[in-house]
Amino acid sequence: MMPPDYVFGLIGHPVSHSIGQIVYNRYFQKKGLNAIYLSIDIFPETLKYFMSYASKMDGFNVTIPHKISIMDYLDQIDWEARSIGSVNLVKTEDGLLKGFNTDYYGIEYMFKKGGVDVSGKSIVVAGSGGIARTVIHYLIKNNAKSVTVKARDVKLAKNKLNAYDVDIKEYANNDYDIYINCTPLGTEAVGDPFPEVQFGKGKIAVDVVYNPPVTPFLKRAGISGSKTLSGLDLYIGQAIKTLDILTSGCDIDTLINSVRVAVNEVR
Amino acid sequence: MMPPDYVFGLIGHPVSHSIGQIVYNRYFQKKGLNAIYLSIDIFPETLKYFMSYASKMDGFNVTIPHKISIMDYLDQIDWEARSIGSVNLVKTEDGLLKGFNTDYYGIEYMFKKGGVDVSGKSIVVAGSGGIARTVIHYLIKNNAKSVTVKARDVKLAKNKLNAYDVDIKEYANNDYDIYINCTPLGTEAVGDPFPEVQFGKGKIAVDVVYNPPVTPFLKRAGISGSKTLSGLDLYIGQAIKTLDILTSGCDIDTLINSVRVAVNEVR
Repeated sequence: MMPPDYVFGLIGHPVSHSIGQIVYNRYFQKKGLNAIYLSIDIFPETLKYFMSYASKMDGFNVTIPHKISIMDYLDQIDWEARSIGSVNLVKTEDGLLKGFNTDYYGIEYMFKKGGVDVSGKSIVVAGSGGIARTVIHYLIKNNAKSVTVKARDVKLAKNKLNAYDVDIKEYANNDYDIYINCTPLGTEAVGDPFPEVQFGKGKIAVDVVYNPPVTPFLKRAGISGSKTLSGLDLYIGQAIKTLDILTSGCDIDTLINSVRVAVNEVR
Repeated sequence: MMPPDYVFGLIGHPVSHSIGQIVYNRYFQKKGLNAIYLSIDIFPETLKYFMSYASKMDGFNVTIPHKISIMDYLDQIDWEARSIGSVNLVKTEDGLLKGFNTDYYGIEYMFKKGGVDVSGKSIVVAGSGGIARTVIHYLIKNNAKSVTVKARDVKLAKNKLNAYDVDIKEYANNDYDIYINCTPLGTEAVGDPFPEVQFGKGKIAVDVVYNPPVTPFLKRAGISGSKTLSGLDLYIGQAIKTLDILTSGCDIDTLINSVRVAVNEVR
């Protein structure tokens, strides 16, 4: 077996749920690219050790809990990632570490593919972490009428999202147009981020969780007539941008095929 | 930050519970060795992709579910690992991948440190995976009177352990001298491998789980007067041998200190 020419990967804690190691390794093999994608589990306490190794990799995705703390280690951060304040991709170029936010492109891809225009809509987002921040950035930039954040710890969420003009509440109600889950609730089909909400025609339910592609929350909303957008499209959109940045291009059909295989294999 | 001269690590699925990324990175820093230890999460389906990259690493520990399947990819396997049929360490030498079983030395270290001689003893082992196999190998080699395996799936266990002269039963009872847990039960202080057993003076309880160092099973046995051996000593013994093989030596005090720090940080 020939050692790979390129070493890519994912860093986070945990990473055992992530389908990336199947998606990208399968994609590289299909495209004849001699590259590897490693899922690397890194505690908050050990990020500092990993960063000495980081420039030996050609690039890596970043997930919880490092999307914000990684920024302190980077040589450059692209303006989208800087304005969002969250990085989910690092590329190594001439030994320099450059940060990007491809989640933003994943969110854009998901809404466009679903034919949903957020302008003039009242929207509630569950969660206040890195992906919630990126979603809020997209909603405000695309002229949402109002954005409310549902958070268990209202004070903490206010602190984390102080850069954004958003209301923060402990519970949602039935008055919003669009409901977006940005928490891990629903991963492995456990948990519902909006148990207090009755869905129906005219409401739109959106989930950033991609595994399973139809979470309990989306299933409940869909059955009652709401339009639903799956986190799998966000994942695909984000992966298209990741491959664009890391390998200067993306064969979307091969990528989508690899994602579908991965989601079936990991369940 | 200077890129590391040596790249070590752990492969398995999951790996998020493993303290190795703190233990070894801290040890290397204290000893001024320019090396890194990466915890890499690898599904059974993606092991084949990783193996193209493996020889670019200087060595790596192997945990569930790869301790047996990894053997097909190795150029050499040392006789202890071959006779046990389970590898938990791979070292790269001149581009060749060599397999070892340091768990064996960890088990030996744990029993010796605890002052427990297994010869002439009747022993029950819960579990039939890679570590159970290594423990059984040690017990038979050190003249245990009898070894019984407690397994939920007796038929499957018989199949996996057909090379060993052991009884296999669904339940233990109170008649054994030594009770050894080789299942993940007790990890994160959840689960008891021998709920059906009354412990007391004269019985010995042994656990391979190292986090927490005193599992519910060991606590229950200890309270009732049994002698107990903790998986933390197995971990330390195994790490001493791992560092011996990977870095030609081990400063045991620095290692034990790193293990104690790691166990406290990860809980």
